[in-house]
Amino acid sequence: MCGIVGISNCADVSFSLYYALYALQHRGQESAGIATFNGSGLCKFKGNGLVSEVFSEATLSSLSGSVGIGHVRYPTTGENRPENIQPFLFSFRGHVIAIAHNGNLVNYRDLRTKFEDKGQIFWSTSDTEIISKIITEEIRKGGTIEDAVRKCMECLKGSYSVVMMYDGDLYAFRDPHGIRPLCFGKAGDSYIICSESVAIDALAGTLERDVYPGEMIHINQDGVRSKQIAEARHRGHCVFEYIYFARADSRLDGSLVYDVRRKIGAQISDDEPVKADVVCPVPDSGTAYAVGFSEQSGIPFKECLIKNRYMGRTFIMPTQKKREQAVRIKLNPIPDHLNNRSVVLVDDSIVRGTTSRRIIETMRDAGAQEIHMRIGSPIIKAPCYLGVDMPTRTELIGSDKDVEEVRKSITATSLHYLSVSALVEAIGIPQEDLCLGCLTGCYPVEITNEVCDNRCITIVDRDFQTNLFHH
Amino acid sequence: MCGIVGISNCADVSFSLYYALYALQHRGQESAGIATFNGSGLCKFKGNGLVSEVFSEATLSSLSGSVGIGHVRYPTTGENRPENIQPFLFSFRGHVIAIAHNGNLVNYRDLRTKFEDKGQIFWSTSDTEIISKIITEEIRKGGTIEDAVRKCMECLKGSYSVVMMYDGDLYAFRDPHGIRPLCFGKAGDSYIICSESVAIDALAGTLERDVYPGEMIHINQDGVRSKQIAEARHRGHCVFEYIYFARADSRLDGSLVYDVRRKIGAQISDDEPVKADVVCPVPDSGTAYAVGFSEQSGIPFKECLIKNRYMGRTFIMPTQKKREQAVRIKLNPIPDHLNNRSVVLVDDSIVRGTTSRRIIETMRDAGAQEIHMRIGSPIIKAPCYLGVDMPTRTELIGSDKDVEEVRKSITATSLHYLSVSALVEAIGIPQEDLCLGCLTGCYPVEITNEVCDNRCITIVDRDFQTNLFHH
Amino acid sequence: MCGIVGISNCADVSFSLYYALYALQHRGQESAGIATFNGSGLCKFKGNGLVSEVFSEATLSSLSGSVGIGHVRYPTTGENRPENIQPFLFSFRGHVIAIAHNGNLVNYRDLRTKFEDKGQIFWSTSDTEIISKIITEEIRKGGTIEDAVRKCMECLKGSYSVVMMYDGDLYAFRDPHGIRPLCFGKAGDSYIICSESVAIDALAGTLERDVYPGEMIHINQDGVRSKQIAEARHRGHCVFEYIYFARADSRLDGSLVYDVRRKIGAQISDDEPVKADVVCPVPDSGTAYAVGFSEQSGIPFKECLIKNRYMGRTFIMPTQKKREQAVRIKLNPIPDHLNNRSVVLVDDSIVRGTTSRRIIETMRDAGAQEIHMRIGSPIIKAPCYLGVDMPTRTELIGSDKDVEEVRKSITATSLHYLSVSALVEAIGIPQEDLCLGCLTGCYPVEITNEVCDNRCITIVDRDFQTNLFHH
Amino acid sequence: MCGIVGISNCADVSFSLYYALYALQHRGQESAGIATFNGSGLCKFKGNGLVSEVFSEATLSSLSGSVGIGHVRYPTTGENRPENIQPFLFSFRGHVIAIAHNGNLVNYRDLRTKFEDKGQIFWSTSDTEIISKIITEEIRKGGTIEDAVRKCMECLKGSYSVVMMYDGDLYAFRDPHGIRPLCFGKAGDSYIICSESVAIDALAGTLERDVYPGEMIHINQDGVRSKQIAEARHRGHCVFEYIYFARADSRLDGSLVYDVRRKIGAQISDDEPVKADVVCPVPDSGTAYAVGFSEQSGIPFKECLIKNRYMGRTFIMPTQKKREQAVRIKLNPIPDHLNNRSVVLVDDSIVRGTTSRRIIETMRDAGAQEIHMRIGSPIIKAPCYLGVDMPTRTELIGSDKDVEEVRKSITATSLHYLSVSALVEAIGIPQEDLCLGCLTGCYPVEITNEVCDNRCITIVDRDFQTNLFHH
Repeated sequence: MCGIVGISNCADVSFSLYYALYALQHRGQESAGIATFNGSGLCKFKGNGLVSEVFSEATLSSLSGSVGIGHVRYPTTGENRPENIQPFLFSFRGHVIAIAHNGNLVNYRDLRTKFEDKGQIFWSTSDTEIISKIITEEIRKGGTIEDAVRKCMECLKGSYSVVMMYDGDLYAFRDPHGIRPLCFGKAGDSYIICSESVAIDALAGTLERDVYPGEMIHINQDGVRSKQIAEARHRGHCVFEYIYFARADSRLDGSLVYDVRRKIGAQISDDEPVKADVVCPVPDSGTAYAVGFSEQSGIPFKECLIKNRYMGRTFIMPTQKKREQAVRIKLNPIPDHLNNRSVVLVDDSIVRGTTSRRIIETMRDAGAQEIHMRIGSPIIKAPCYLGVDMPTRTELIGSDKDVEEVRKSITATSLHYLSVSALVEAIGIPQEDLCLGCLTGCYPVEITNEVCDNRCITIVDRDFQTNLFHH
Repeated sequence: MCGIVGISNCADVSFSLYYALYALQHRGQESAGIATFNGSGLCKFKGNGLVSEVFSEATLSSLSGSVGIGHVRYPTTGENRPENIQPFLFSFRGHVIAIAHNGNLVNYRDLRTKFEDKGQIFWSTSDTEIISKIITEEIRKGGTIEDAVRKCMECLKGSYSVVMMYDGDLYAFRDPHGIRPLCFGKAGDSYIICSESVAIDALAGTLERDVYPGEMIHINQDGVRSKQIAEARHRGHCVFEYIYFARADSRLDGSLVYDVRRKIGAQISDDEPVKADVVCPVPDSGTAYAVGFSEQSGIPFKECLIKNRYMGRTFIMPTQKKREQAVRIKLNPIPDHLNNRSVVLVDDSIVRGTTSRRIIETMRDAGAQEIHMRIGSPIIKAPCYLGVDMPTRTELIGSDKDVEEVRKSITATSLHYLSVSALVEAIGIPQEDLCLGCLTGCYPVEITNEVCDNRCITIVDRDFQTNLFHH
Repeated sequence: MCGIVGISNCADVSFSLYYALYALQHRGQESAGIATFNGSGLCKFKGNGLVSEVFSEATLSSLSGSVGIGHVRYPTTGENRPENIQPFLFSFRGHVIAIAHNGNLVNYRDLRTKFEDKGQIFWSTSDTEIISKIITEEIRKGGTIEDAVRKCMECLKGSYSVVMMYDGDLYAFRDPHGIRPLCFGKAGDSYIICSESVAIDALAGTLERDVYPGEMIHINQDGVRSKQIAEARHRGHCVFEYIYFARADSRLDGSLVYDVRRKIGAQISDDEPVKADVVCPVPDSGTAYAVGFSEQSGIPFKECLIKNRYMGRTFIMPTQKKREQAVRIKLNPIPDHLNNRSVVLVDDSIVRGTTSRRIIETMRDAGAQEIHMRIGSPIIKAPCYLGVDMPTRTELIGSDKDVEEVRKSITATSLHYLSVSALVEAIGIPQEDLCLGCLTGCYPVEITNEVCDNRCITIVDRDFQTNLFHH
Repeated sequence: MCGIVGISNCADVSFSLYYALYALQHRGQESAGIATFNGSGLCKFKGNGLVSEVFSEATLSSLSGSVGIGHVRYPTTGENRPENIQPFLFSFRGHVIAIAHNGNLVNYRDLRTKFEDKGQIFWSTSDTEIISKIITEEIRKGGTIEDAVRKCMECLKGSYSVVMMYDGDLYAFRDPHGIRPLCFGKAGDSYIICSESVAIDALAGTLERDVYPGEMIHINQDGVRSKQIAEARHRGHCVFEYIYFARADSRLDGSLVYDVRRKIGAQISDDEPVKADVVCPVPDSGTAYAVGFSEQSGIPFKECLIKNRYMGRTFIMPTQKKREQAVRIKLNPIPDHLNNRSVVLVDDSIVRGTTSRRIIETMRDAGAQEIHMRIGSPIIKAPCYLGVDMPTRTELIGSDKDVEEVRKSITATSLHYLSVSALVEAIGIPQEDLCLGCLTGCYPVEITNEVCDNRCITIVDRDFQTNLFHH
């Protein structure tokens, strides 16, 4: 997963990008980068680490200009190479271009071979480089950026939310299924396009709306222009963004994530009532679910696991024999809240099951009598090919185990998952417009050896109004 | 403020110290250090930054031995000099000594002059160096470490919880008022003495009890020995540890911090009932209070401010004109939870009032109609001389303003503070055994130009049992 | 200028490359890089700084394999960007390729435009990227590396000595004029191709011979193969390599540099005899010249200027008013050797004249009565377009001044330059096979607005013996 | 060994100290430090590495004031601990003091025990801390700095050249035998006291004279004051400074080092004439000797070994089996100058013999027929206790081998050492005023288990003129 942002018409744009990336940091902690256009060329700074580690006041000050893009990167492909840090920069016939991309292309290999057959060289293993090849190919043929985006929507299979600078012009587009989020807004005179609305909040701006799936937005000194390039029969918004990935205070495609989670918490209380002394979340991902569960069930909300707020990326793991204790450094159980109690433990999802089992063990060591696990998502059965770093089927505890088998494995007193239909209702988007691949094994795009409900894409080329903003 | 830890009889002691310091990181983020005794000499590693930034697997591996001490430092004195990073190491007549200290000596100046008159040189501006002078002075005169600790308790005025290595022996002592916390426990065969019980939890150990005020503990291969060196007429446990400083999952002098805070939350609901739609904490310090308030009042608990979990120590502040927006990068309000609502906003304390006012402003911008602020502590009127980094009277909003004046200043709809007596009751320790200096202006030790309720100290020299552990 | 090296069939190849680059460090101090092929993919490490600063034992150990190439870079183009650090790595249809290049392409702009017209993207501003485009273009068309090298020799104008890895095969080629040096040799079972023979010496190997201008060498497990791809009517070996750039202990195209310089020293003594007390070099570049001058003239050789051996790349310059003194930190005159003496001061060349003037001033301040400057090269009149970082005509003191004018400017008592014919004789290569561009303004390749003596290139495709080594 | 410098009355004193330390870098490459007095307190910056690596423009700019001292450190004691990096800073009764020291105290252990018996704590293992203890002891007793220096000269045994700041006053003193060098001079209005005159040259200043053995110099706004505190029956200037340690362009106690070496070169040619084709130095230490030898013998001077100028402190050594080749990376032989030749190889000294043997081997591999080794010093028989990092007797090849045995060991054709009397004559100082300990085993100060020619010290307290400068 990654976070992207583009800002235009903004004095000190590098500082605004920095604050926006801070707000998107949860989408990627491996590397961060900013590129700006200073009127004649590109300035950039990229590095491994958190936004706070990569940038200094001096480096931000060196990134001049009033338009720029930024990126935080999560190691989807597992290849931590400097060339793969985004934004990607290149020049073509005197024009300078920078691209930042969130998503995953499932036909990367095919497209790469196709381009290599034309003699193109690849510097990186990132699929962002494929996008840059398509764009320059179209420009070389005399096309515009709009033509290039159209070509992308024809060729690319998978998820892609993209922000791009072409000299001083800012462009953004989102795949026709709208798999990864992308939205835009305004702060003062500046325009912001970003993965989640929290980046607009960080700049004290106002969210305008989500970028429509298949839409392209173009911002320069003449204003903000939009065009619907392509449409899919059905959208495919990723449900895992709501379940886990997005920040609770983000609005995604119309819904506030916190409230989706709170509603789910209430729902799982109704679905499978339980008598218990206390409702306790696995922090921080289970908190909003637990708040909803407590409110609906009337069982008091009380934190029983305290999270260490200082876990660095470089935490040194204990030796094997002490590994079991390691969970306590991250999540410390409070015996006073657990001893001889019956506890509802609420989390967003179970992936491998290892962490859940360890948490339950430490809670039982701390005296808990009953631990009723409640999960804010359906059972995860299948991998993600569209940008979430999910393990393979072999590692997914839910791929070949039923609920009772999972319960035994994690040693919970009882276990309940949310149903798919309840999830869909909580999100408030029709099921056919969601990607439920990891829950059902059926994906919105064709993937080799996987089932696909064909949501075919049509090029539409429909103009929107020239000025997108109501204000 | 600082966090200290000493561990004895532990293979890979440096790794255990590292995990313990991780658990104490909230007590000091400026610098961290570890010293171990490897059988013949001291190994040490110290640096500026978080525990995760200072240490690597290689540096920890280089710190050999089975006994060691560690320290995390908060810039109490404001002097960030390498010499001031603890532990302090020195050698004397072939013995190697390391000291780590949490607290503040109010007679530092007098003692320093006294030692300089004897020809002693000072390398640092830290009061830990004073303690090292007293110790070597006593050893030179033929005394034991116990004599030296007795001398400390005679001479030192202020707060001091100390862990110390003398060659391979581990010592710890706490000032006779017990102002700063210090406790001990066991994990496997290892003994742990540390500022808060969470460090013992991190090592999957068991808290034995708090170190008594005026007690000295001595651990070596012969076992664990304790001696009550001195006693004060009354103790003076710092209430601000319960209010803000300590981790919620720590037990301090008998009370679980989380529950003290939750009880206070319930109490302030009873004291000043209010009709509102939602109870919302200022995260993270207000959370336990808000949980208690919600449970008692029946008003639903709902997070309305989402904290950015990635605020680094090196966050680059926006330029002045954008400063007002900066609070939004740290704490983002959720308009859906605030719009047209009446909100109970719960925090632990108000110091300068600036942050409270900014938070209330952003909540009102997000649509909140009424904001009823509830504070989990009495009004803070006076500075702290005993280790908490509290501002001067001029900067304290409560030093010369009454509740209504503070309310106006922070623009809350209503404002209620906890009473002193309710605080005392929630903590569960008699008022005469607490330090309420910041709330009352009356301190347990003599401080120039401040009022003191003389809680005089007596040397008692009472032996405890040789083996302190029941197990 | 740059230094390049390729090594094949060598255990611990990264360490051998490291020692070779150490020996070539004088050819470039801005950045260094190594790439190795580990049987399945490329390993690489690159960074800004000296070889000793860039690599550690850990980074070298991580570069596994038995074949690799290395590069040290001098900022010819003045663009210190990370993308420009060599070797350049890329992959194409499953093959991994790494290139390191020494030289300068004068038709870079034209070639870049040509490739951009075909839709190729450029990531760097380095002309090495052009070479990589030509190579992949030929491979795409079904050609071999040999075809690709032929294409390079057809298209590229300028100087280029290249080492290249194509998967585990090592290739090297040199432009048909042989402008920059390139030689090869053997150390144990390993093959080495490098800019100067000192890199072979560093590995205790034996120089075989120079790579012929227009020759391609190919080394893999089947042995060492050579092919004469192209020939120029005349060669164009750079004379400035002999005058200044190459190490004194290198053999270039048949001549030992030290002896070329010593012969020149003797020659300038014969050309313009002078009565003086002492012959003193400007260290270190003038030393071999001064040794020859002293031996021929009988005037004693004595160092009068001592060079500070610790001048780092990051030397902090004094403020403007003290700038004049700065030369003394680098070169300290010995008054005892200068006072009331008549001195022959010997240097290799005069470029801007500023340094010469400052040195003469400090020597005169130290008491020197007469300073007879003797220069081991003819007057430099014209810029270099073929890889030497020479200033523009405006900055070159010799471009518009005659000898007497230069003498006045640098305030020498007398001044004598070497003649072009004496230089040619000392080098021992026919004048028509040298590049004398900086001395005559007439270049071996076509350069816009400059004179060229057309030394046209023919493709010859002549095979050499399969095994190049006599041993 | 170390280099020290103090500068007074100088705007931008930190930059001047930086240039001075650059000139003294050869005296110590392990660490560097600068301390300045800014009118109210001390500023300092210290670090491991070369002067060019430790300081940046920013750190120098932060060191404000017009008086300061600096230090470069060579690891004499082998303990590379941050506390041992000089200058040493401490405060005493409101005064701030900084000390930098070159030398070695042979009664360090005794003095340390004496101070520990008085209750003093030691932070470091550096003997500079002893000096600081003596100074504060005297001040505490009501004495002046002059009294403290007198006390030092009474108590300290060994070598010590010291510069010291006491608030804004600059002090310097040198042990009564004058073992390590110390001189002073002027540059503009600034006063400079430093280990070698090259530091004064670097600031374009004028050497006034050496600090007399036993003299103390005191510089403040009232001028420059001198006092002869103590005198020894005989001086003991270290001969190894002339042989190897000092820079060739320094004047030490009246003699230019380069000329001492050149005279020695001529002398060894006269002592043991040899027929040979070429005189070749081991660079750089043998160069001045070889120049003298060549001039006297008429055998041409020609470099046959080229030194790599880029050997960093962090050079990574080859694996054991390639260790033998390593010398070639540092010193590359030129076969053209050696093949079938008879060579006089000149070096300053032989310590362990290992390097000499390896050099001779590579020269012979390069074809040399006869290698006549000539050494510019007598045979080194005994260790140094007075500041030169000389190995123990066991490691010294000359401690138990005669000349013929050494010759065999290093495989030279012939070998000749300088005689002690010739060395004394070349230096130009009476033998009884030199320290010849490493050559004779007889030292000017008492050392346990070694012979001493008692050169007893008397306190004289003789005032010199108030203003030391003639200008």
